[in-house]
Amino acid sequence: MGGAAVTVPVIGTIRTPFGSKFAVPRQGGGNCPAHGRVILEPPYSAPSAVKGLEGFSHLHLIFHFHLAGPGPFHATVRPPRLGGNTRLGVFATRSPYRPSRLGLSVVRLLGVEVQAGRAQLVVEGVDLVDGTPIIDIKPYLPRFDAIPGASAGFAGGPPPSLGVEVAPGAQARFGALPRAERESILAILAQDPRPAYRGAGDGHRYGATLFGHNIVFFLDGGRILITAVED
Amino acid sequence: MGGAAVTVPVIGTIRTPFGSKFAVPRQGGGNCPAHGRVILEPPYSAPSAVKGLEGFSHLHLIFHFHLAGPGPFHATVRPPRLGGNTRLGVFATRSPYRPSRLGLSVVRLLGVEVQAGRAQLVVEGVDLVDGTPIIDIKPYLPRFDAIPGASAGFAGGPPPSLGVEVAPGAQARFGALPRAERESILAILAQDPRPAYRGAGDGHRYGATLFGHNIVFFLDGGRILITAVED
Repeated sequence: MGGAAVTVPVIGTIRTPFGSKFAVPRQGGGNCPAHGRVILEPPYSAPSAVKGLEGFSHLHLIFHFHLAGPGPFHATVRPPRLGGNTRLGVFATRSPYRPSRLGLSVVRLLGVEVQAGRAQLVVEGVDLVDGTPIIDIKPYLPRFDAIPGASAGFAGGPPPSLGVEVAPGAQARFGALPRAERESILAILAQDPRPAYRGAGDGHRYGATLFGHNIVFFLDGGRILITAVED
Repeated sequence: MGGAAVTVPVIGTIRTPFGSKFAVPRQGGGNCPAHGRVILEPPYSAPSAVKGLEGFSHLHLIFHFHLAGPGPFHATVRPPRLGGNTRLGVFATRSPYRPSRLGLSVVRLLGVEVQAGRAQLVVEGVDLVDGTPIIDIKPYLPRFDAIPGASAGFAGGPPPSLGVEVAPGAQARFGALPRAERESILAILAQDPRPAYRGAGDGHRYGATLFGHNIVFFLDGGRILITAVED
């Protein structure tokens, strides 16, 4: 058993509005309407390979946490949700720094499209960095996959939710963004994407790459204040 | 992109009552109480690697469909649920014959045990062949993973459910099995594990390896009849 491994092909990549790991909404973000597009690569992009998928409302995506890079096995991680100071077993978390470097997300399927003879999937509720390699696509089967009464350990509480405001100097640029992008940005920042080891009022200025813009913000008296929208 | 691949380590194996692919309950089987045991291998078996997992009621297992073997990519498969005659895109199914050869199952976590310094997980609702290599363990997060209202295409209907009876000549052997095993065997056979291309009354005699026994049965007038329990 020791040293056994499995090699799995990359079947495509996903395009998303999230240009960097920082500020990607955690686990789909729930109320975040951001869309993504799974672009399958030959031979997996044959339209016949997704025949019947349009009958499902949701999909599982198995993907490669490619930005985590390779590295030695660490049995424990410090989940951001616990403030970054508590160590938990890596298999008790959804951390990217797991032996497989594989992630799992449920997304809503909005449509199946064929471009230049290749299948693409339009999905909603993505929490993946732009360009993430996709390893597998599986239909979500509510009879087996949906367990609403499951209990969820440390992850069971409500997510953080901060107030988000736009500073006067940034309102013109922010207001010029499409409505869906504005709503997504506000929803993502409300989840407090700052690194977990930061305190409640660290004054540090952060930049998140969202929808091709650098959104500059900092924590100001318990709320997130957006101070600039840069290209 | 073409030809890109990811190599993922096997972190352990699962022991289950199902000795062969044939008659493994589909996707956990719902009402099937069969238990399994995930035996982690070093270094992944460090008890600290599962610290916190006991707070979750359910887990996702990502596993290797090792019995599917390697093989060329086929864009379509014929799901048993559709009678084996309809071709669907492989990504619209949970077929083992997918590019990744990776499977995904939700199981209930009954307990975390440490034996000889190594962590093991006792789980319920398994649909894996005994000895299946485990690639990853992730906590099931109902806030993100449970979508009870999802619609499920061709897989949305109720599963098949046949009557199952034990022939007089097999009742002594069958009745001597532990109650949990008897209930599991009846639940599994009620799902009609016969290959999809078989008709409704094919008269063919099947053997399913369950809990270390060969359960011999055939379809008799619309019900499953168990005719022998062999070692």
